[in-house]
Amino acid sequence: MISGTETAAQADVGVTIMRHAQQLAQHTEAPGMMTRTYLTEAHHGAAALLAQWMTDAGMSVRRDAAGNVIGRYEGLTPNAPALLTGSHFDTVRNGGIYDGNLGIILPIACIARWHREGRRFPHAIEVIGFAEEEGVRFKATLLGSRAIAGTFDVSVLERRDDAGISMRETMAAAGFDADALPAAAHRRDAVLAFIEVHIEQGPVLLDEGLAVGVVTAISGASRFMVRATGLAGHAGTVPMGLRRDAAMTAAEIGLFIERRCSGTPGLVGTVGVLEVPNGAANVVPGNAVFTIDIRAEQDPVRLSAVGDVLKEMHAIAARRNVQLDINQTHDAASVPCAPWLQAQFADAIGALGMPLRHLPSGAGHDAMAVAALTDVAMLFVRCGNGGISHHPDETMTAGDAQAAADVFSRFVEHFQPQKPVGA
Amino acid sequence: MISGTETAAQADVGVTIMRHAQQLAQHTEAPGMMTRTYLTEAHHGAAALLAQWMTDAGMSVRRDAAGNVIGRYEGLTPNAPALLTGSHFDTVRNGGIYDGNLGIILPIACIARWHREGRRFPHAIEVIGFAEEEGVRFKATLLGSRAIAGTFDVSVLERRDDAGISMRETMAAAGFDADALPAAAHRRDAVLAFIEVHIEQGPVLLDEGLAVGVVTAISGASRFMVRATGLAGHAGTVPMGLRRDAAMTAAEIGLFIERRCSGTPGLVGTVGVLEVPNGAANVVPGNAVFTIDIRAEQDPVRLSAVGDVLKEMHAIAARRNVQLDINQTHDAASVPCAPWLQAQFADAIGALGMPLRHLPSGAGHDAMAVAALTDVAMLFVRCGNGGISHHPDETMTAGDAQAAADVFSRFVEHFQPQKPVGA
Repeated sequence: MISGTETAAQADVGVTIMRHAQQLAQHTEAPGMMTRTYLTEAHHGAAALLAQWMTDAGMSVRRDAAGNVIGRYEGLTPNAPALLTGSHFDTVRNGGIYDGNLGIILPIACIARWHREGRRFPHAIEVIGFAEEEGVRFKATLLGSRAIAGTFDVSVLERRDDAGISMRETMAAAGFDADALPAAAHRRDAVLAFIEVHIEQGPVLLDEGLAVGVVTAISGASRFMVRATGLAGHAGTVPMGLRRDAAMTAAEIGLFIERRCSGTPGLVGTVGVLEVPNGAANVVPGNAVFTIDIRAEQDPVRLSAVGDVLKEMHAIAARRNVQLDINQTHDAASVPCAPWLQAQFADAIGALGMPLRHLPSGAGHDAMAVAALTDVAMLFVRCGNGGISHHPDETMTAGDAQAAADVFSRFVEHFQPQKPVGA
Repeated sequence: MISGTETAAQADVGVTIMRHAQQLAQHTEAPGMMTRTYLTEAHHGAAALLAQWMTDAGMSVRRDAAGNVIGRYEGLTPNAPALLTGSHFDTVRNGGIYDGNLGIILPIACIARWHREGRRFPHAIEVIGFAEEEGVRFKATLLGSRAIAGTFDVSVLERRDDAGISMRETMAAAGFDADALPAAAHRRDAVLAFIEVHIEQGPVLLDEGLAVGVVTAISGASRFMVRATGLAGHAGTVPMGLRRDAAMTAAEIGLFIERRCSGTPGLVGTVGVLEVPNGAANVVPGNAVFTIDIRAEQDPVRLSAVGDVLKEMHAIAARRNVQLDINQTHDAASVPCAPWLQAQFADAIGALGMPLRHLPSGAGHDAMAVAALTDVAMLFVRCGNGGISHHPDETMTAGDAQAAADVFSRFVEHFQPQKPVGA
């Protein structure tokens, strides 16, 4: 068990984390909302604040070509291989303030304590604030963690935001060189593992009264952007039987997805974007745009659902004489968390006298991309309000922040690399 | 039959109508599209061009407080009661160039010919370019014709466009005094009837190879704006069974409307606006906005469908734990066309040796509103491309423009008021 002195110190960490979350949330594109998309003014402000906190915690700080903010806390010897940790500091529109951000703020707060205590470990620690994970601005996700992992898809650099500005142009204007992205990849021999602290964004821990849980795997996900093209017409004069209504085509497809993905544990399907461009009350929709997001912990479950959905989409579109333009925007296999890292999280939780709960992650996380570089694991932290996230009602408690910081600290302090450092 | 000389003159009219339609279409908010909403710069430009053509055709021109453009061609005696005609010069977004506009351009072209010939009638003729019918900018329809009829609902003056500007502010900025709207109403004893020439906006005349048809009645219409409020959530972590998805609620309602309105002749139902505000691929939609438009030639048929739809909407929303905010934005009873006016159109068509076809109008028209002031009738003109309208593919031919001008001219030249002028 930890000593009384350590407990008092940790209590400060929980409070610091909550305060920093509020301070970081001031950097938003829309007052009163948490909206911080890639390389906006709010995004730059958040990056600067994270860099300041990292510096204050005794880390050397750099930014890479993707805009990631990387703080390095050296080990007992210079240039020791690093345990990586971190999460993303972009958000969805009108989302929550802990999603992603917690996984950057929490390690910084723990390192600040070690820095005050003059404590170092055989390994270095790198805290990475991933610049982009959600995919809001350019409809491409995990940009920051893919850059770190060396898997950045340069074709997305030509994607344009709603204002028509390409990602490449956006990066250049912010002083980031897209051509230097390959150099942002970490060297495999310089990293030991990646661990990510993240709110659960679901109701499991809340329902079971647990502060933290150890993630077993991150669900795989398939995403599509679909444009349906029928024929616009006058809402009063085109008989129902002669219509080629793009919106009702989208509606029927959406309800099929909902039905197909119900009843199978761990499988979910969502139409998150649904829009009739330039729609008017008295016009039969000739166009509709919508997204499809299908996830499952088991890849065969997901791929079976995707196959059925695509087949049914074509059938619905053919029957309605509507054309579909289907683009897959994301395809990620399920990513298992490394058993040896899960075991060390379990040890830390047990040593702190907390109950152990393993659970899968239905949401994608930066750890999915970093898994291409090194073994990964995740620690989930309970969130309140029914587990809601991507929403202003997203919340968590200072007590849970402290509990998660306790587990994270214990994990790092007792961390045993799979291969000994220097071996 | 008409004389050879008259035929040659009429041929000019058909060509003039088509040329004027193209010229008027240059006044658009979006180059390459026909978009002209209430009191925009494009709308002002169109009004000025119509006024110029009216003046050239020997009419005195004025604008009323609603922005209607009114040209008066005096009769044989000053201040004679007037036969009213006209249609609207606003359009839907990315619509066609003949919808509405034809019903202003055609009478002007016919009057220009009478003016050249020095010909006048016992009655005056007033051609009205109605400033607003479609309801695009402020989600309120028939503004111009309601002002003429004295039924303008002043509560809509406080509605705001997408930029947040109220209708009252918009009118004031354009120099129109909302407080003077009551004075825009025509005096009943000064008008004899209202006739409107309009493209069919449907496939009936095209299918039957007819240039024109006489409208029996204008379908009644019910419109609603609906906001669905569920609960946003993470697309990966909220199990299907716990979702409160506003978009799928809207989708299910839309498909019910489609099903309920299918199979009954003359009944149509449309969801023309469908949108998840700030939607993102990885967020379960917490909000959706959509419109409902239900129309039928027979009012009991429409009201029965509306009742069933509202009942089913509440059932769907309750089952999905989603809240609905339903606002009726439009409710118009079916408007019969006056038999005595229909008979004079039939006489004109017969005298010209053309086949007679009566048909209902599934679309609403300015004549619906003017019916509160005086008896109304409508002449439909064939449109091409399957009868498409509210779409850039909307089209018609110079030959049909000429045929419609022939019928309109014959109607006016032989017009017999229900009560003799001056009686």
